[in-house]
Amino acid sequence: MRLSLTPLPGIPLIRVGDDLPAIILQSLDRLALDLREGDILVLGQKIVSKAEGRMVNLASVIPSGRALALAAETEKDPRMLELVLRESKAVLRTRPGTIIVEHRLGFICANAGIDHSNVAGDGTVLEEWVLLLPENPDRSAGCIRQRLEEASGVRLAVLIIDSHGRSWRMGTVGVAIGVSGMPAVVDLRGKPDLFGYNLRITQVGAADELAAAASLVMGQAAEGTPVVHVRGFPYPLREATLVELLRPEDQDLFR
Amino acid sequence: MRLSLTPLPGIPLIRVGDDLPAIILQSLDRLALDLREGDILVLGQKIVSKAEGRMVNLASVIPSGRALALAAETEKDPRMLELVLRESKAVLRTRPGTIIVEHRLGFICANAGIDHSNVAGDGTVLEEWVLLLPENPDRSAGCIRQRLEEASGVRLAVLIIDSHGRSWRMGTVGVAIGVSGMPAVVDLRGKPDLFGYNLRITQVGAADELAAAASLVMGQAAEGTPVVHVRGFPYPLREATLVELLRPEDQDLFR
Repeated sequence: MRLSLTPLPGIPLIRVGDDLPAIILQSLDRLALDLREGDILVLGQKIVSKAEGRMVNLASVIPSGRALALAAETEKDPRMLELVLRESKAVLRTRPGTIIVEHRLGFICANAGIDHSNVAGDGTVLEEWVLLLPENPDRSAGCIRQRLEEASGVRLAVLIIDSHGRSWRMGTVGVAIGVSGMPAVVDLRGKPDLFGYNLRITQVGAADELAAAASLVMGQAAEGTPVVHVRGFPYPLREATLVELLRPEDQDLFR
Repeated sequence: MRLSLTPLPGIPLIRVGDDLPAIILQSLDRLALDLREGDILVLGQKIVSKAEGRMVNLASVIPSGRALALAAETEKDPRMLELVLRESKAVLRTRPGTIIVEHRLGFICANAGIDHSNVAGDGTVLEEWVLLLPENPDRSAGCIRQRLEEASGVRLAVLIIDSHGRSWRMGTVGVAIGVSGMPAVVDLRGKPDLFGYNLRITQVGAADELAAAASLVMGQAAEGTPVVHVRGFPYPLREATLVELLRPEDQDLFR
């Protein structure tokens, strides 16, 4: 079965309080694309964060002593590091220009996923504003999904993604940070392989594979396509949370 | 622009010496799918390795002292570990059931990418055979691409992928191990963002994002779809090698 990923056109600049499901439905209308059972909508993290009002003015942030010490180590803005610390459970690595943390949501990433974002919804340049990740991306995905399911009358899934750097390999890739209505990890262990001779031992990071695929389509940010419609996801949909994708610390050889 | 990934039907069990480009062209014919300028063919590593005769009978392998020591640490077959060592530059981590190495090709992976593969091209069960990665996957991709370009008369790309586990996150994802005719990493640094206000700082692991997408489509191995046709890759094609995706050791905080 073919997998197709279609960037939704005409998504406007998002402001606090904007109704993302309504905006998505309008864009689908414009494409004359009807939602079908099993379709997935993938959203870039930034529009969800903006709609939820997760922008912070650095001028309002007073760095702690620990943030000041980290600022010296990393040569970064101490107010930014204060926000990184508030959004994190632990600091894993630092060096000039880089801080890698365990985010309060459980995944490992640079800068706690906080982006510089000095442009408001109306296009005004806002110096010194940054954008935190959504408070609870699984919940955000669930709310958006519920609205889209109500409007369409079909069973859907919603995935919220960000771009992460990686150990060992160059270049960022799209990864899942919030999921509703689809598996995060697909467990193929114990299923026979093509020939029926071997039981397979693989768990597939299916939501991350889809996040990477959607990120490729969103990648041309100059064209402004933070929402991607997916048809043909090959695994059965089910309820899940992002936790499936988080490797427990005691199974992780690279902390 | 839409990105579409189509698994090619009817790819037979591959034997040593099989002509993969001819087999791919036959399958495209069956789909009535004409190759167009900029299309990409993504191949799972196993069929390339099999066609190249990279199967090894463990009965023929004599483990070294180092392989025997690693076998004690990892509780794995010492003959398998001998092959892992021959295929690797360095051992990064071991524990029971797991060995993570720097492959001679430069990437980090478990078991040097060696798979148990106890099924021959004719379906015979071969106990104790394993499958090494292709000798030079960039070159393999280049040879396949050349044949497909000659047959179609259009400019194409070929990507060879494998599934890798990851630090920090559960589940395997498809990653590039060989590339011809497409960027491995796309450098967006210095390009203006959507609003023209910020210069972006991102390098995108585009070949890995496409590998993950194709892996999703191949994932249902029970259906036997080790080749995926891709249309709509959003970045310009160019010559590249896998080296773009390998993070230099001095930039890697997680070795």
